Order: sequence, then C-alpha cells, then structure tokens
Amino acid sequence: MNQSAVTVLGLGPMGRALAGAFLDAGLRTTVWNRTPGKDGELLRRGAIAAESPEAAVAASSLTVVCVVNYEAVDAVVRPGAVADALKGRTLVNLTADTPGRARDTAAWAAEHGIGYLDGAIMTPTTTIGTPAAVFLHSGPEDLYQEHRPALDTLGGTHTHLGTDVGRAAAYDIALLDIFWTAMAGYAHALAVARAEGITARELAPFAKGIGAILPPMFEQGAEDVDDGTYSGEGNPITSSVSSMAHIVETSEGHGIDASVMRAAEGLARRTIGRGHGTSSFLRITETLALGTA
Amino acid sequence: MNQSAVTVLGLGPMGRALAGAFLDAGLRTTVWNRTPGKDGELLRRGAIAAESPEAAVAASSLTVVCVVNYEAVDAVVRPGAVADALKGRTLVNLTADTPGRARDTAAWAAEHGIGYLDGAIMTPTTTIGTPAAVFLHSGPEDLYQEHRPALDTLGGTHTHLGTDVGRAAAYDIALLDIFWTAMAGYAHALAVARAEGITARELAPFAKGIGAILPPMFEQGAEDVDDGTYSGEGNPITSSVSSMAHIVETSEGHGIDASVMRAAEGLARRTIGRGHGTSSFLRITETLALGTA
Ligand SMILES: NC(=O)c1ccc[n+]([C@@H]2O[C@H](COP(=O)([O-])OP(=O)(O)OC[C@H]3O[C@@H](n4cnc5c(N)ncnc54)[C@H](OP(=O)(O)O)[C@@H]3O)[C@@H](O)[C@H]2O)c1
Ligand SMILES: NC(=O)c1ccc[n+]([C@@H]2O[C@H](COP(=O)([O-])OP(=O)(O)OC[C@H]3O[C@@H](n4cnc5c(N)ncnc54)[C@H](OP(=O)(O)O)[C@@H]3O)[C@@H](O)[C@H]2O)c1
Repeated sequence: MNQSAVTVLGLGPMGRALAGAFLDAGLRTTVWNRTPGKDGELLRRGAIAAESPEAAVAASSLTVVCVVNYEAVDAVVRPGAVADALKGRTLVNLTADTPGRARDTAAWAAEHGIGYLDGAIMTPTTTIGTPAAVFLHSGPEDLYQEHRPALDTLGGTHTHLGTDVGRAAAYDIALLDIFWTAMAGYAHALAVARAEGITARELAPFAKGIGAILPPMFEQGAEDVDDGTYSGEGNPITSSVSSMAHIVETSEGHGIDASVMRAAEGLARRTIGRGHGTSSFLRITETLALGTA
Repeated sequence: MNQSAVTVLGLGPMGRALAGAFLDAGLRTTVWNRTPGKDGELLRRGAIAAESPEAAVAASSLTVVCVVNYEAVDAVVRPGAVADALKGRTLVNLTADTPGRARDTAAWAAEHGIGYLDGAIMTPTTTIGTPAAVFLHSGPEDLYQEHRPALDTLGGTHTHLGTDVGRAAAYDIALLDIFWTAMAGYAHALAVARAEGITARELAPFAKGIGAILPPMFEQGAEDVDDGTYSGEGNPITSSVSSMAHIVETSEGHGIDASVMRAAEGLARRTIGRGHGTSSFLRITETLALGTA
C-alpha cells in the first residue's frame, strides 16, 4: 500500500477526468470500471489496470469512487471481498446522491472499519485539474486533512463543510437543483426562440447576459429568504407572474410543452393567493415548503 | 412639442427608474400613472405631472410606456383621446408581453398614424441609467435612429434586433424564460437547503458559483442545439436524470413541492425514451417541440 497512490473506481467521464488529474500530478493511479475498455487512454498515460475492484482498492491507501449513483457505489464496494480490502483504508465517495444515502454509506463504512469521506463535484469534467474545479467534502476532519494533499491534486477549490457526512450531498442537491432547473429553462428558451425564428447562436449572447445577472440576484435573494423580507419593491411577484403567463402563452401557441414554466407559475399564483402579491418572487420558497397543493 | 422632451406613462418600479434616468440626463420629463401619488419623488427631481394620459403624450414628441402588460398598455393608450394625441408622435413600448401582442399593437399604431417601436428591458430597475442596463428594440430602423439619443440616456446597451416589431418581445420571452426558471430553481434549492439545516447565506457563495458556470454552458449549448449535435460525452442525460431524481426524492422527503423539477425530469425521461440516452440534457429542446406528452 503506497501513500502517494490512489485508486479510482468508475471510469465514466468524471472518473476518467479524476484519474487523469491524479496521473498528471504523478500519483500512482490504479483504475477499475465495471465495463472494461474505458481505461485505454489512462493506461497510455501510466495508469495501472486492476482485474477487480478488490484488487484495485488493495493497491492504494486512498480509493475514490465516482459512478452514476449510490446504487452503483453499493454494487461496486459493498461485496464482501471489496469491503474486506477497504478495511483500514479510506474511501472518498465523489458520486452524487442524496444526503440520506451519504449517511447510510458512512454507517456501512464505519461498521466495516473503512475511513469514509463523502464529497461532491460542482463543475464539469473539463474543470478537473484546473483552478475552476469546485469540490465539496464532508465527514471526519482528520481524515479530510490526511488526504487533502491527494485531493488537492484534482485542482480547484476544496471546501470541507463539516463533520455531518450528509452535508456535501445536501449542498450538492441544492446546487444541482439550481443548475438543472436553469438548464431546463435554457432548453425551453431555445425551443421558443427557434419557433420565433431566432437561432440559439443569436440568443446566446443575451442568454449569457441573463446568466451574468443571476449571481447578484442570488446574493440579494439569500438575504431576503434568511430574513423573511422578500421585498417586491423593485419587482413584485404579480409582475413576475405576468411574464410567466406570457412565456406559457407564447410557448403553447407554438405547440411547445410548457410544463416547467406552468409549475413555476402555479407556485407564484399560490403565493399571491396566500396574500403575498407585493412580495418578490422568492417568497415562493415558503409556498414550496407547504408541499404540493 | 419639445424635441428633447419625453413622456413616461406608467410609474411602477421600472417606469419610475426610466423617468429618473431621463431627468438625470436633463430631459424635460412628463409623467403619468393610473393611480396617482407614485410621482412624488420624480416631481421633486423636476418631473412634470400630467393630468391625463392625453395631456402627458401631448407634452413630448416621444412617449415611453412601461406598465405591467399590453392589456394595461391598451387601457392607457387606446382610448380615442390618447390615440389622437399620439398621432404624428412616437410611442416606445417598453412593456413586456408576447411577440403576437407586439405585432398587434404595431398594427394599431400604424392605423392611427403613430410611430411605434417595441422594446424590452432585460435588467433590474437598479441598472437603469448605468452601464449595466440592457435594452432590446425592434421596429422601423429610421424611427429607432431618430430616438436613439433619448433612449441612450437610459444607459447601458441598446440593441436594435430588426424591423420585425415582434422580435424584441420574442427575445424577451426567451430570456425571461431562462431568468424565471432559474429563479424558481434557486427558490427551490433554498427551500431544500433550509430543510437540510443550510441557510441561504451559507448556500449563496456556492450558488453564485453555479451562476458563474452557466454562461459558458449556454454558449456551448447553443452550438449543440443549432447543429443538432447534443454531445453527451462529458455528461449524458442519463446522468442528469439521476441527479434530478435525487433532487425530487430529497425535496419530497422533506414535504417540499417538487413540481418544477418533476416536470424537467419528465422531459429528460421522455428524451431518453426517444432513444437519446447518450445525448446531453439539452436534447430536451427537441422533446419540448413535440408538445405535451
Ligand atoms: N460529468 C460531469 O460533468 C459531472 C459533474 C459533476 C458531478 N458529476 C457526478 O459524477 C458522477 C459520475 O458521473 P460521470 O459523468 O462519470 O457519468 P455517469 O454516467 O453519471 O456515471 C458513469 C459511471 O457509473 C458506472 N456505473 C453505472 N451503473 C453502475 C453499476 N450498477 N455498477 C457499477 N458501475 C456503474 C459506469 O460504469 P459502466 O461504464 O460500466 O457503465 C460509469 O463508470 C455522477 O454522480 C455525476 O453526477 C459529473
Ligand atoms: N421591475 C423590473 O425589475 C423589471 C425589469 C425588466 C422589465 N420589467 C418590465 O417593466 C414593466 C413594468 O414593470 P414594473 O416593475 O414597473 O411593475 P409592474 O407591476 O409590472 O407594473 C406596474 C405598472 O403597471 C400599471 N398598470 C397595471 N395595470 C394597469 C392598467 N390596467 N391600466 C393602467 N396601468 C396599469 C401600474 O399602474 P398602477 O400604479 O395604477 O397600478 C404601474 O404603473 C413590466 O412589463 C415588466 O415586466 C420590469
């Protein structure tokens, strides 16, 4: 077992990017993937192919697992031979899943004498090994500090969010919620634009402008939500809902599905119905917490 | 009728911001609003209060109308006395609505001998009069050039999108689609974060990081959509849908409405069902265009 050695289980786009960054940093990198043949490029760059997940984890003190979800993680690491091989070593799980399953995996690891850290990757594969990468971690602080040198070779910023092992997954869920919802909005905008004779490339510079105003909106909105102020002085939710209705009307007029915007508009209307018409749109956070109508 | 005079109809947050910028630029600014009493601060800064919308438009060669939607625009400008007073003058409509209603309003204006430009404002009230403001315009090029000096006093960038008068509204709809969908995602993320013991202020720095990765994603995505490539090599839609399911599960586990994400997830699953599991998530633009399932 080599201290500057690392094993990567899972060679999807992200697993390959992680293994590539470890190799670039000169770490002895052992790789394994359920379906063979994903490691060709990595082997040319010096990675070591393991015959089995148990052989892979036995090669390093630190194993990083990055597969599609925790069902896949379980399928890879929970079989007896793999759990035995992991005993006394550290498993860093950079797979995305729910906070509940992160806590469950940590409990399983503790029962089997496996050091366990849970993490999440917030940026695309192309950022790995560059300053633009963003990693979130949670779990035992000492274990995190011990493996920090290896994790740092993945580039970017690493934040340890605390010892509650579910915390990285909770942040991940919330942040992916923003990301995928925004991407759904972008896809819908491009569909409507196309129906109006506007190409995606024509819209993109302005779409980027919308992207640029989101971060300050998020910052201001966080204060509104924590403090319960929701000032609609500059832009009341009644005005937002009017825009949303126009989007639905234009979309459906072109035969384009508007289910996402219809759901958002419904939340805004429920919020107005609760007597908050002069609040900002973000007042829907309260309505959301009341559950489905 | 004074060439460096402008009238603003509608003194909601945006109308007040527009009138304020005209005043700051030294233009003779006449204002009117359906409900009296919104002009106090503007009058102190030198604005002239008109008794009626017809008196307001008669005071200037250029009238800017900015109210909640075109129903409100119609209520303000279509009565005979106002239409008569607008004859031979220019109306710039900076109210948000659908492309169809922009074209309809332009047709009405043409019938009444009124010069008509349609526009949209893509940034919040606080940007008006600053370099951060973004305005879109469409309609007759010569009319746009004639009034450009007055419009420029509103600050920021002004783009004339063409003579099809519905084009500014079409861009507006598409861009607001991105904006409000993203804000719905942010509100939902904050609700889930709160249920997980994470404050909005704790999440905000990372949310801003997500905001920062959207513009390059939008740029890359535009090429995918225009070219029909949708490469999922770095991140297939099967992986996106797995994250979406985690978000729905975590949200609903806390009793939080997940209707927006459920709609987005449904679109992704339909897209996979159509045989595009290895595509990127943006392939849903095609599914959207097939209409509601
Ligand atoms: N790609 C990105 O931009 C990105 C960004 C941030 C976070 N992430 C996260 O990183 C993780 C990995 O993502 P990815 O992009 O590499 O692609 P992915 O499609 O999410 O995952 C593919 C990997 O999962 C493995 N896998 C799936 N089911 C399995 C099972 N039952 N047993 C064993 N292995 C199984 C695949 O193995 P086979 O080859 O055998 O199918 C492959 O190694 C995900 O949790 C994702 O959310 C990805
Ligand atoms: N606020 C922003 O950040 C922002 C940003 C970009 C674009 N916009 C667009 O700018 C436009 C104006 O927005 P806003 O923020 O000023 O607030 P708003 O709430 O959308 O509009 C308020 C204005 O509409 C008037 N109005 C409503 N119904 C009317 C009717 N039936 N007849 C006459 N007037 C009526 C109101 O008059 P009363 O005072 O009499 O009710 C008030 O002047 C909207 O189209 C909005 O989408 C706003």
